[in-house]
Amino acid sequence: MDGWTRLGHFLKETQILGSIQSVLYWDQNTSMPVSGSSWRGEQLSLMARQLHARQTSSEYLDLISQAREEFEISRDNGDHDCERERNLELLELQLARQTSLDSVLVGELANAKSEGYERWQKAKSKSEFSIFSPALKKLISLRQEEARQLSEKRSCWETLAQPFEPDICLDRLKELFSTLRTELPIILSEVCLINRNISSTNWDLTSASQERLGNQLLDEWGRNREQTSLAFSPHPFSITLGPRDYRLTRRVVEGQPFSCFLATAHEWGHSLYEQGLPDLSHQWFAWPLGQATSMAVHESQSLFWENRVARSKVFAQRWWSRFAKEGAPVYSANQLWKEINPLTPGLNRVEADELTYGIHILIRTDLEIALLEQGLEVDDLPAEWNKMYSDMLGIVPKNDAEGCLQDVHWSEGMFGYFPSYLLGHLISAQIAEAMCQDFESQGIKGPDPIADLISKGKESTIIDWLRRNVHVHGRKVNAEQLVERVSGKSLSSDPFMSYLKQKILDLQSCL
Amino acid sequence: MDGWTRLGHFLKETQILGSIQSVLYWDQNTSMPVSGSSWRGEQLSLMARQLHARQTSSEYLDLISQAREEFEISRDNGDHDCERERNLELLELQLARQTSLDSVLVGELANAKSEGYERWQKAKSKSEFSIFSPALKKLISLRQEEARQLSEKRSCWETLAQPFEPDICLDRLKELFSTLRTELPIILSEVCLINRNISSTNWDLTSASQERLGNQLLDEWGRNREQTSLAFSPHPFSITLGPRDYRLTRRVVEGQPFSCFLATAHEWGHSLYEQGLPDLSHQWFAWPLGQATSMAVHESQSLFWENRVARSKVFAQRWWSRFAKEGAPVYSANQLWKEINPLTPGLNRVEADELTYGIHILIRTDLEIALLEQGLEVDDLPAEWNKMYSDMLGIVPKNDAEGCLQDVHWSEGMFGYFPSYLLGHLISAQIAEAMCQDFESQGIKGPDPIADLISKGKESTIIDWLRRNVHVHGRKVNAEQLVERVSGKSLSSDPFMSYLKQKILDLQSCL
Repeated sequence: MDGWTRLGHFLKETQILGSIQSVLYWDQNTSMPVSGSSWRGEQLSLMARQLHARQTSSEYLDLISQAREEFEISRDNGDHDCERERNLELLELQLARQTSLDSVLVGELANAKSEGYERWQKAKSKSEFSIFSPALKKLISLRQEEARQLSEKRSCWETLAQPFEPDICLDRLKELFSTLRTELPIILSEVCLINRNISSTNWDLTSASQERLGNQLLDEWGRNREQTSLAFSPHPFSITLGPRDYRLTRRVVEGQPFSCFLATAHEWGHSLYEQGLPDLSHQWFAWPLGQATSMAVHESQSLFWENRVARSKVFAQRWWSRFAKEGAPVYSANQLWKEINPLTPGLNRVEADELTYGIHILIRTDLEIALLEQGLEVDDLPAEWNKMYSDMLGIVPKNDAEGCLQDVHWSEGMFGYFPSYLLGHLISAQIAEAMCQDFESQGIKGPDPIADLISKGKESTIIDWLRRNVHVHGRKVNAEQLVERVSGKSLSSDPFMSYLKQKILDLQSCL
Repeated sequence: MDGWTRLGHFLKETQILGSIQSVLYWDQNTSMPVSGSSWRGEQLSLMARQLHARQTSSEYLDLISQAREEFEISRDNGDHDCERERNLELLELQLARQTSLDSVLVGELANAKSEGYERWQKAKSKSEFSIFSPALKKLISLRQEEARQLSEKRSCWETLAQPFEPDICLDRLKELFSTLRTELPIILSEVCLINRNISSTNWDLTSASQERLGNQLLDEWGRNREQTSLAFSPHPFSITLGPRDYRLTRRVVEGQPFSCFLATAHEWGHSLYEQGLPDLSHQWFAWPLGQATSMAVHESQSLFWENRVARSKVFAQRWWSRFAKEGAPVYSANQLWKEINPLTPGLNRVEADELTYGIHILIRTDLEIALLEQGLEVDDLPAEWNKMYSDMLGIVPKNDAEGCLQDVHWSEGMFGYFPSYLLGHLISAQIAEAMCQDFESQGIKGPDPIADLISKGKESTIIDWLRRNVHVHGRKVNAEQLVERVSGKSLSSDPFMSYLKQKILDLQSCL
């Protein structure tokens, strides 16, 4: 057996262990009784230790270097297998990261993360930032040390952001976000003036109705019941537990009749991406190329289905009567469409609409860069947070629980993740624009061929297009390369801004 | 750290791995989409390999012998720790069994089991015994070889039955079942004559109603929601996934409005037993003494709650109006009581009532002993099966699917399990008799203090009694020793027979 094949077998077993960890996680969030958590912690920690040992074992090191050697020989003999090369590079990169950290730091980080999470929970429940701040200080200094030890040719924040957004750099991020930073607050203030007299949604649907609508949605969007299971969990998520084992969860939030429905759409977008990753054989499941290329691309897929499809006007035309049938006081497509697109500034990122979401992210991105690289003191974080909310969204949190303690990310030392959410909006819009051009060239009716397909219930055409043009590449290309390949242009915020402005105009013309 | 403590740590990690396997099993039966099964197979097989390696490792062997050495020294110094001794004995016994089999046989058995299961599924769906018979022949000869390699001072069937029913032997079994063998068919023929004019249940309840009634039942029977999760699965089961993580499943069967309810009662009985096992610390979860002592004892606990409680007359008095409220056409306690206790011969073991259940087991027990020890040819099994059904139950299967292909056990080479079901009835009755005497001596109203407690909704008193007298012993004693300890008498079929006869009289007086 050649080294490449042996490496594949090794990776497959690693993947099996990883997927067992995922089953434990799925169960923990969907079935486990609360008092099971301490034993579950022991199970997860055993799996984590096993995985760590495998991924830093000399056996693995040897397998990779043998596979590299074989590859070089083949290439010298004129047989250049690009996919194999990319797989090797990605594995080597990951290995280099894992082996360049000293074990003392790894241990300290693990402890700091779990302490951080614990203190954050307490701090949030009591809305007392000072409970969390010592842990955050510790986490920041440890992760700064981590970046030093990784010694990549990148800044600290850039280094820590790599696992989520490979090749991301600060200059490019600044460029991509600059228009959003100036224009979003201006649009928002205009919208607020106009929207002042729109009443918000003040009705609700039963859990059974919400579940039924979500299931109908998935059936229309091509759910294969033999491959996909659904459940409820405190926070919606989607996860892949094996090459043909897709799961997604949603939740019912009291007083938010669209929450379950939109979460279903969102998580299904994530799942469709994973379902479309290259997987001609089980083998791909174990190799880097069979994985998602970045969190922003992942998010672009979920946002596409949530916002571009489920929150579109044509979609409301097809669905308003189904909502009405479930007892919603909805009497027209326009009414459903407006209610599902509130466009009002709130303090909560997760519940934010398409317009305000970006502002939440800009604030977090600035703050985490400042904490890691620009000397912002942890103790000054709450004040800085509140000031930015006031400046950019025009509202101020009543307390830190709904302010800087709102998100879980920093509590586990996760820095560099937030921009992916906003990049996801940009990527979704640019991909949608390219899709429209492609459909138009195929003779599907303009000016918005996506809307045309939705109105005819032909979402499967959209899914096919995404499979062929986006999902299938896995990690062959990074996020920006993918966008360039799909749209023929560099990523920019233009498609998102024009989409957003047009949508706001349309919504206002409905008033 | 002494050897005993190190052994405990080792066992705990083994237990964590085992419990991960159980999570995979739970998920497979409650959540996994069908196309996840092949990858799940790979996950389960990896865990099985890891467990096998641990349990036969030289590290484990050394730990056990060190712990044994330490124990001998302490004992010689006058410190005789009986619990430690029993734990060690049980571990040594299990280890001896694992190490006395040659690895070729172990591999062949694993293959034969999976082939047997596969062929049995096909054979059952086509009702064609010849599809299954070659695999059954193979399984029998391999398991006979297994018994030879184990070379215990027991017959083949006895050896294979040990893991389910420690210390069971054929002579004792014959003695215990002899009255049942003569009397059950006679009682049945009398009952059939009298029952001829009772109409069977011909109504149904919605799934939601059945679920609601089952949940009410568990709430009344002390379910701690923080420790117990429920789900649906094709076959009801109860499982413990961690020291404080209990799960149970049930199913809704069309046309059988009591199925879900009685399965809930049955599985809760199993779960209560596991919840009551000695577990003062996590440690007990890993040691043999923290485990169930036998399948018969396990079954006695589920049967107690299903039959002695949920199928009792007083229980029907408390519950008939709740069934009526859910839409059941039930207008009196007596009607519910009669309908939930049909007492009619059927071909299906799982759906059998208290009277006929024993006959199903006697038939299977005789046949598996004949197959393993008395030269019954596999090809003659269907005819022999049908003959016994005709002789003892007065009915003959239309085909092998509802005849000798009905149960899964033999398809995986599982011999020696069936008697546990019937022993469970005997143990349940004898324990119930002892419980009544004990309650009467405490001044709880006779002649049936259990009925008195049920009628007052004081099931918690019964649970407490079972915890203190039955559950808490774990594997300190075997099934017969446990019964003797609880009732002061050797196990016999007398309490079961008198309970059964009285119940039949009561039911008939209700006609």
